[in-house]
Amino acid sequence: MSDLAAFRRAAHAAVDWVGDYLAGIERHPVFPRVRPGEIRARLPAHPPETAESWDTILGDLDRVVLPGITHWQSPMFFGYFPANASGPAILGDLISSGLGVQAMMWATSPAATELETHVLDWMVDLLALPDRFRSTGRGGGVIQDTASSASLVAMLAARERKTGFETNRTGLKGTLTAYSSSQAHSSIEKAAGIAGIGREHLRLVAVDQAYAMRAGALEEAIRADLAAGHTPFFVCATVGTTSSTAIDPVRAIGEICRRYGLWLHVDAAHAGSAAVCPEFRWIHEGLELADSYCFNPHKWLLTNFDCDCFYVADRAALIETLSIRPEYLRNQPTESGAVFDYRDWGIALGRRFRALKLWFVIRAYGAEGLRKHVRNGVALAQEFAGWVKTDSRFELCAPVPLNLVCFRLKAGDEANERLRDALNASGRMYLIHTRLDGKVVLRMAIGGTYTERRHVERAWVLIRETAAGLPRLG
Amino acid sequence: MSDLAAFRRAAHAAVDWVGDYLAGIERHPVFPRVRPGEIRARLPAHPPETAESWDTILGDLDRVVLPGITHWQSPMFFGYFPANASGPAILGDLISSGLGVQAMMWATSPAATELETHVLDWMVDLLALPDRFRSTGRGGGVIQDTASSASLVAMLAARERKTGFETNRTGLKGTLTAYSSSQAHSSIEKAAGIAGIGREHLRLVAVDQAYAMRAGALEEAIRADLAAGHTPFFVCATVGTTSSTAIDPVRAIGEICRRYGLWLHVDAAHAGSAAVCPEFRWIHEGLELADSYCFNPHKWLLTNFDCDCFYVADRAALIETLSIRPEYLRNQPTESGAVFDYRDWGIALGRRFRALKLWFVIRAYGAEGLRKHVRNGVALAQEFAGWVKTDSRFELCAPVPLNLVCFRLKAGDEANERLRDALNASGRMYLIHTRLDGKVVLRMAIGGTYTERRHVERAWVLIRETAAGLPRLG
Repeated sequence: MSDLAAFRRAAHAAVDWVGDYLAGIERHPVFPRVRPGEIRARLPAHPPETAESWDTILGDLDRVVLPGITHWQSPMFFGYFPANASGPAILGDLISSGLGVQAMMWATSPAATELETHVLDWMVDLLALPDRFRSTGRGGGVIQDTASSASLVAMLAARERKTGFETNRTGLKGTLTAYSSSQAHSSIEKAAGIAGIGREHLRLVAVDQAYAMRAGALEEAIRADLAAGHTPFFVCATVGTTSSTAIDPVRAIGEICRRYGLWLHVDAAHAGSAAVCPEFRWIHEGLELADSYCFNPHKWLLTNFDCDCFYVADRAALIETLSIRPEYLRNQPTESGAVFDYRDWGIALGRRFRALKLWFVIRAYGAEGLRKHVRNGVALAQEFAGWVKTDSRFELCAPVPLNLVCFRLKAGDEANERLRDALNASGRMYLIHTRLDGKVVLRMAIGGTYTERRHVERAWVLIRETAAGLPRLG
Repeated sequence: MSDLAAFRRAAHAAVDWVGDYLAGIERHPVFPRVRPGEIRARLPAHPPETAESWDTILGDLDRVVLPGITHWQSPMFFGYFPANASGPAILGDLISSGLGVQAMMWATSPAATELETHVLDWMVDLLALPDRFRSTGRGGGVIQDTASSASLVAMLAARERKTGFETNRTGLKGTLTAYSSSQAHSSIEKAAGIAGIGREHLRLVAVDQAYAMRAGALEEAIRADLAAGHTPFFVCATVGTTSSTAIDPVRAIGEICRRYGLWLHVDAAHAGSAAVCPEFRWIHEGLELADSYCFNPHKWLLTNFDCDCFYVADRAALIETLSIRPEYLRNQPTESGAVFDYRDWGIALGRRFRALKLWFVIRAYGAEGLRKHVRNGVALAQEFAGWVKTDSRFELCAPVPLNLVCFRLKAGDEANERLRDALNASGRMYLIHTRLDGKVVLRMAIGGTYTERRHVERAWVLIRETAAGLPRLG
């Protein structure tokens, strides 16, 4: 494939492979029937000495790879949260790969940087986010790989702002304390470890019956730390927790953050996309009090992983925290201050041209198309929740504000684990569990690119029938 | 593009666009002639309400994007280090986007994890890396986005090993000190800030005349820190510095690390790829003393960004540092301990299926093809260095062990800056500068996917002619 004619032939074949895969996706078991090590065993122990043909390589996709794929794009995949891929996003990625440019600085590809800034401002329009996140003021947006990275850099900027940008320079001193609800994503705790704060210094604040943070408990925790001589510096509020899409009270939390001088980061990784629809924008109530915010179009907004949109209200604090200027990265546009250099907005120096796929998605669907996709997921989840209520063997375990239904068999943890395992082993659908109030709960996350009503209906039939067939539990 | 037939049509058009772009790449100015803000000004202020056609979108690539692209894939691009894209890698990315799976845990797509483990073991073969980095022993490899992230996680694992895995839990106490040469990549200093160590506690060790770390100076610095009551914990040795591809003496550094109980990370981001050729494997002499190692196939080994191969000798230390196990990520294969969950090997939870492109590249080129590509870059750089020596206006500024030539006009810094600016403004080639011993030096990095001898010859003609045309400097 060293010449471009060969590339074209191979590329057209690859496109057809992807088209065929997506068209036939329902033929595969959603979760693959492989044991650990089985895929590796099909691969040669050592790399080839000479080139192999494209036909051989493409053929191995079917022979070696597909039998070991968990089909996230299947309309019967209801695990985790959706990982929306879509035609325009796939092609945005393709063209980004073909261009092969770096988006680390303005000078390394001006269009990559300016399109990123611009499309992230478009997202402020689309989600009706607070104006302070726009690049045209003191804020701005940037694409991170994941919400894990976004939360980490938010925590770092918060750490630096609180310590006068001294920790970065001279190392951590004393005890800084951070806060999230007990339902916050594990990446917040991981970030506290990475940043040198210590995982124990992330206080897991109690939640209410809807699994949302109790603002009163947050304030008590901050006061207790202050009384102990610690330095509270950071709160992560979650809009749509991973376990149950609980929505923390952002305004109340934000007011506390203002009162005590803490950085407020709002993690809306999954749920944020819902705000393309006016009727769901209540989830962001109070967001104008936040210092930073993120949501992932790569979850529920038809844009391939990776694409986390991360916003800050004061970009200077972020840049001051993460910038470093060796000689070999100096250039006139950077020195002029007239441009953004996104390497100073995240961990990695090198960066892909990811704005392209987001631009393609927004244009190919339009605001209208994006709203339709979100509404479809929410409507199906609401309908599914209604079905659960009609079956006396089951119960709902949390409010269903959006597109995730947490439910369980009343028969106990073991019954739910067996039900999950039997459904997943059938290959006909896939879901995972979580724990709420210590109980095993099944999570039905709806919103795949190709998921229609008939798939959710079929899932409910499978769940009911499988539950009926479970051996009676002691 | 909501149906698959429309996707196929659009995708074939996108493939042809990429093919045409690469075929015609030499027609574009290598560095674009745009002012800050010019690209944004061509974009609508607000996102579209309704869907736009694929033809319109694709047309805007030519109208809006291309005029603002720095053409990293141009054979006349000699800036930074190469960012090799290639046909097989582009198609690996495409198919990864089409599959749309997550490689964060074994269970989220077994083939993605197992192929990653396997291909990273293949890389141990290809580069003849120490056996301790193989997954079949206590070590193993993982794909990170960049060497910045790889160095950060290496530093974190080192921090934890030194502090009995307590910093992660209870926060940093006391002064930990890290070491690299004064020529190490800026990401090491950035990592020291992120990890809470403090940038000032990264000691920049003096280099010799070839810009390689002086092992004696390293030992002195460690002793001084010990005497001051600090805790030395981490050394980053560089194999191929960014400024001049200087090669630190890994064995001597490794022996010091063993003596004082420090973690040795070896950053071979650019140069490591050279080790596919037996004649260049001397660059890794002593690597069996390293605790971790990384190199970037996305620089010089024909694999699109992002693809950094990161290895550890003791994966348990890395996993202990970065793992976190919320309920919703629990699953039987993970609990069994029989599988790798790569989310525990890096910062981000979500992960793309990047092994696919690396697998494609290795197979489509074979070891033979990879060696040919590296040898081509080195041979052209050696030839270019020979030409520089024959022109008395110029001087070489550093040894040329591989594919980077550091050279300058003897006429002084301003002359070199003017030469660089004139060359880049011509649009006919692109290079950047660095500073060595305080002097402005031009860097000619050779090794692009499409760079042939005629391109390097043309560049040398351009450089000589442009230098001749510079106004005499006062």
